Amino acid sequence: MNAPLAPSHPLTVVVLAAGKGTRMKSQTPKVLQPLGGRAMLAHVLQACGTLKPRHLIAVTGHGATDVNAYIDRHRQVLLNTAQCTTVLQEPQNGTGHAVQLTSTALDDEAIVLITLGDVPLVQPASLQAVVALCNNERVALLTVALQDPTGYGRIVRNATGHVQAIVEHKDANEEQRAIREINSGIMAFPARLLKPWLAKLTNNNAQQEYYLTDVIGMAVADGVEVQTHCLPATQAWEVAGINSPAQLAHTERQYQQLQAQQLMEQGVRLADPARFDLRAAPGSALAGHLECANDVEIDVGCIFSGQVHIGAGSHIGAYCHISQASIGHHCLIAAYTHIDGETAGVTVGDDARIGPFARLRPGATLANDVHIGNFVEVKNSTLANGAKANHLAYLGDASVGERVNYGAGAITANYDGANKHKTVIEADVHVGSNSVLVAPVTVGAGGTIGAGSTISKDTPANSLTVTRAKAITVQGWSRPIKKQTR
Amino acid sequence: MNAPLAPSHPLTVVVLAAGKGTRMKSQTPKVLQPLGGRAMLAHVLQACGTLKPRHLIAVTGHGATDVNAYIDRHRQVLLNTAQCTTVLQEPQNGTGHAVQLTSTALDDEAIVLITLGDVPLVQPASLQAVVALCNNERVALLTVALQDPTGYGRIVRNATGHVQAIVEHKDANEEQRAIREINSGIMAFPARLLKPWLAKLTNNNAQQEYYLTDVIGMAVADGVEVQTHCLPATQAWEVAGINSPAQLAHTERQYQQLQAQQLMEQGVRLADPARFDLRAAPGSALAGHLECANDVEIDVGCIFSGQVHIGAGSHIGAYCHISQASIGHHCLIAAYTHIDGETAGVTVGDDARIGPFARLRPGATLANDVHIGNFVEVKNSTLANGAKANHLAYLGDASVGERVNYGAGAITANYDGANKHKTVIEADVHVGSNSVLVAPVTVGAGGTIGAGSTISKDTPANSLTVTRAKAITVQGWSRPIKKQTR
Amino acid sequence: MNAPLAPSHPLTVVVLAAGKGTRMKSQTPKVLQPLGGRAMLAHVLQACGTLKPRHLIAVTGHGATDVNAYIDRHRQVLLNTAQCTTVLQEPQNGTGHAVQLTSTALDDEAIVLITLGDVPLVQPASLQAVVALCNNERVALLTVALQDPTGYGRIVRNATGHVQAIVEHKDANEEQRAIREINSGIMAFPARLLKPWLAKLTNNNAQQEYYLTDVIGMAVADGVEVQTHCLPATQAWEVAGINSPAQLAHTERQYQQLQAQQLMEQGVRLADPARFDLRAAPGSALAGHLECANDVEIDVGCIFSGQVHIGAGSHIGAYCHISQASIGHHCLIAAYTHIDGETAGVTVGDDARIGPFARLRPGATLANDVHIGNFVEVKNSTLANGAKANHLAYLGDASVGERVNYGAGAITANYDGANKHKTVIEADVHVGSNSVLVAPVTVGAGGTIGAGSTISKDTPANSLTVTRAKAITVQGWSRPIKKQTR
Repeated sequence: MNAPLAPSHPLTVVVLAAGKGTRMKSQTPKVLQPLGGRAMLAHVLQACGTLKPRHLIAVTGHGATDVNAYIDRHRQVLLNTAQCTTVLQEPQNGTGHAVQLTSTALDDEAIVLITLGDVPLVQPASLQAVVALCNNERVALLTVALQDPTGYGRIVRNATGHVQAIVEHKDANEEQRAIREINSGIMAFPARLLKPWLAKLTNNNAQQEYYLTDVIGMAVADGVEVQTHCLPATQAWEVAGINSPAQLAHTERQYQQLQAQQLMEQGVRLADPARFDLRAAPGSALAGHLECANDVEIDVGCIFSGQVHIGAGSHIGAYCHISQASIGHHCLIAAYTHIDGETAGVTVGDDARIGPFARLRPGATLANDVHIGNFVEVKNSTLANGAKANHLAYLGDASVGERVNYGAGAITANYDGANKHKTVIEADVHVGSNSVLVAPVTVGAGGTIGAGSTISKDTPANSLTVTRAKAITVQGWSRPIKKQTR
Repeated sequence: MNAPLAPSHPLTVVVLAAGKGTRMKSQTPKVLQPLGGRAMLAHVLQACGTLKPRHLIAVTGHGATDVNAYIDRHRQVLLNTAQCTTVLQEPQNGTGHAVQLTSTALDDEAIVLITLGDVPLVQPASLQAVVALCNNERVALLTVALQDPTGYGRIVRNATGHVQAIVEHKDANEEQRAIREINSGIMAFPARLLKPWLAKLTNNNAQQEYYLTDVIGMAVADGVEVQTHCLPATQAWEVAGINSPAQLAHTERQYQQLQAQQLMEQGVRLADPARFDLRAAPGSALAGHLECANDVEIDVGCIFSGQVHIGAGSHIGAYCHISQASIGHHCLIAAYTHIDGETAGVTVGDDARIGPFARLRPGATLANDVHIGNFVEVKNSTLANGAKANHLAYLGDASVGERVNYGAGAITANYDGANKHKTVIEADVHVGSNSVLVAPVTVGAGGTIGAGSTISKDTPANSLTVTRAKAITVQGWSRPIKKQTR
Repeated sequence: MNAPLAPSHPLTVVVLAAGKGTRMKSQTPKVLQPLGGRAMLAHVLQACGTLKPRHLIAVTGHGATDVNAYIDRHRQVLLNTAQCTTVLQEPQNGTGHAVQLTSTALDDEAIVLITLGDVPLVQPASLQAVVALCNNERVALLTVALQDPTGYGRIVRNATGHVQAIVEHKDANEEQRAIREINSGIMAFPARLLKPWLAKLTNNNAQQEYYLTDVIGMAVADGVEVQTHCLPATQAWEVAGINSPAQLAHTERQYQQLQAQQLMEQGVRLADPARFDLRAAPGSALAGHLECANDVEIDVGCIFSGQVHIGAGSHIGAYCHISQASIGHHCLIAAYTHIDGETAGVTVGDDARIGPFARLRPGATLANDVHIGNFVEVKNSTLANGAKANHLAYLGDASVGERVNYGAGAITANYDGANKHKTVIEADVHVGSNSVLVAPVTVGAGGTIGAGSTISKDTPANSLTVTRAKAITVQGWSRPIKKQTR
């Protein structure tokens, strides 16, 4: 990560976030569409936040109520102390119109950075570079040199290489269409220069919109230098705009590749970087964060979300989901294991063997050497060192002691239909297969519960407790016979 | 979809479907190899069917019995009212020979469209364009301009741009090899012109086969115009032929990408379009169809088949399989959920929470607000509003009332070894953990079944019913000791 | 596979395996990092082994103890009868230094082939070609023509096309940088020529290392011909070196694609070759091997390891894991099935129906027509023809007879907390739902176990055996009421 430089002038960031995104065909405003599990807007605000702006102004329109509420809810975590304002753009008469609406709120001393709520992957370093290039004395544009610039506004320069204008594709002549440097829409201006230009914008064009790009011509006319920070084609994803589910999916893959690349640079072994997902926790505006110690191996198709820690030498099998959890070192999390700590978290100690087909739910807290096997669910339970539940079992609201063996098909009946109750299984207990422990109940240390028992009262330590009816055998019993269906 | 134009002349479609496909190393004839879950031939027949031909003639050879039976079984749904004939080509002496065999069946007034049973992705619009180009007066070829045409027959034109011949790669000179426009094998002719040309074909060549492409020279010699409908390279997949498992897999991915693209254009949010599959239902000749309302999100790795409907705002978690099912709105189908309605269908109401690791089988009919949790199987059962089965349970042939809580490990014993019987669980029942309900049996409304009970007789409403032996405790019981293995 | 030619001269292979791989950030030496489930070094040694060298010398350094032990453990299987020596390089002063250390061990009559422990995908045919080119009279280099050779050592030739030198990228002039043929590091020499050159190497360079490539200049000076076996760019993966997790992941995908391609050429139908993995069994130095009869279909996302056989017409559903197992013909292995035979193996007979969500563990031996359904675990058990366990069940250490129906939720209590015991279920038994069979126990042929029973003693044949307490009903029982939480 590039450490953000404190800009030499106060910085106001304008985020254009009023668009509808018709092609998304969604109730959700476009800038709230999720990328990596959180709103596109969260990516943009967080990138802007790294520049420590004095003031951020979001121009909202379609779905403004939702967008404003989103900003309000997450501004602290994304923008820290920046003053934060929203301005309603209605109707949406173009980018120039959007920025015009912020004009009165722009401090004359400030640098104004224009960003776009639907261009979510722009990196802090690029924003910083644009602001530095502006330096409160010139216009700075973030541009990119594309192999195929068809459809984009071209950066037109004069013979001496100075930017003269941004010409939209449809208005460009053949020579201009050969230009590969295109406008990203992200720009920085000295506020004192921008404000009078905004006032002069007109909608005298086919779309009858106010184009922000028209200020470039005004800058040139006023003798203000226009410079570009031009990204190479390999970084074009930074300025990719999102207007459709296809573009969203494409950018999602780009984002996931970036995250995979960063993890591999930290030493994480990914079996297939193209089959890896790391996302924000549901409802969070912060990126998912996967922190791995050395020698962590992650097999194909795993999905992580929220904050996840994995200790040294642990192996995550294929198709696991791990969310809001901390995994110890030298653990083997076998295939198709579903771990979701939600708000309560899940903790797995060292040397655990979990899965395949295991599910750890919120509040599962496993000490070291714990084994959780196939078709076993653990919820809001603590398991002490060496406890094992290897087959088809449910542990809910339980406290399980050291070295307990919780048999196949055993169930904690923790819910009486109205309230949840606690089951305590003390150390060294062996719970027989298909037993039910009806909470609240305590199984004393060293005890054995016979297979098929239903235990609804506390059992003493070091004893065998069993509920079992006598076996009755009906000799020569005649089996049901398959009915004829006519 | 382009609406098919009714051709101005009667249309006879010839489908060449006699090839063996040696490289498939399969008992199944090549044209019956599945793409998107149904035979390649079904794709071709359905595309042809959109042109509403008067007559379709399939030339079959290898595996003709199976291929003819397939056509017979599915012709109604794929071809509607078209007359449908099969002609046996044995031995297979080339494409010219194949079409010769249809000659007597060709109506002199008709346009003849030649298609290929192993070129499954040709789009109706392209076939329509070739037929329109033919217009019962000229030869029309479907061609494509490839970046790398190596190996394909080239479209050779004279100085004025008129097609003169199709020259196979191995027979082409250097100048001809530079030609990028290649023959797809899909062509249309006026029948009255084609028939005499077919009669003149010879097998005077290295392969000793009759090449259909030789008629192009005859057309030129007869002064009949030959025109091409040339697809751009980006559409080359339309005319890709399949001769090996590798080509089949490649085309499968192409087909799935197309389907993913179409869904995203309709507003469906796919987390990764490269990890998405939509297939025909097993045994069906019609394409799988996924119909999504707005704001449907589909996570990575999901597989759909048959007819599937998903309501607005529903979320399908990663690695789900959904087949022949209707899912309501605002449902959360968590990861690794397997829903397969087969012929009976599965219905999930609104606001359901299903999975992870849940399985809904044919005849599962869930009303609104139903929760089905991990390691739960539901088969041929109705669940009323608000019913829940959250953990390790089986519901088969059951009717479950409103707000029922079906406990962890509970099982309906619906099968007596010979016949299936019905379990009725009336509204507001609480079934305790690890209970067995031995069908036929009815649990009365508002009743409670104690944990670990086996219920083989009807239970009254609003009562607690339990089968439980008294707990016996053996104090100071000595545990088994691990035997020494020598 | 190219059959290895016996070289006309004795062959000594030197494997450079001393590198640290700092960017791997791993406790494991670089050459032991796994690719396709086994150490990179195993790939290299096995490729070398196909050349039947008389002597193989591994130069080890970082992690030499582990690397030497690995070679010692696996040399027999990888190298057969070759004499095998390790030489310690410490410190690591370059490739020239590494080979110098082997000098005294080089037989004057031998051809010396230099290979690299971190270039794992070099194919036997390429190594063979280099050795043949050397022919004990010239220097032979394995090279590749890259589209973008940036960073690699270039093969510099004189006007007559004779190799003059290998020039590192950073030392290359503009003309040399335009050369696309680069050095792979894999070379062969007549030992009698190499030894005096090694003696003359100096570390008189910026890195203060001894470069093996300096011998090329010496060869030219001595009038010894230097020839290259130049791979096309499409084979560049053969000589890709691995220094980081990203390169390892990239090469892993390359390797898996190769394997997928080979399987498809054998007729295997892969739904998506990009979502397929075949790996060595854990701990094995031999490649995973998937042997499929005709008409095997493998759906997306499957992972195979070790030795796996699949019979004709069997279908493997999506996301299955299959390891060390033999599957019969016409089986349907449904999605998310986990089969791992480990050292004991798993056998599945013909016409089986397994899964979804089934797990077969070591020693599961299934005869024909066996059905294992969802959430069922089978370990160290034999199931005879037609046996079925369709729902939520556990079979451990059991012998299950023909046509047995093992009910939903049934469990073998095979572990008494200390020892494992055997359960025998004779033919035609019907085990009721949620039953427990407490081993050691035998259920006699044709018997029925009533639902919910716990069977701890042998039961007679053809009888019904049940343990069931009388049902007690508490009328007007008042349900627990949800406690208020304040």
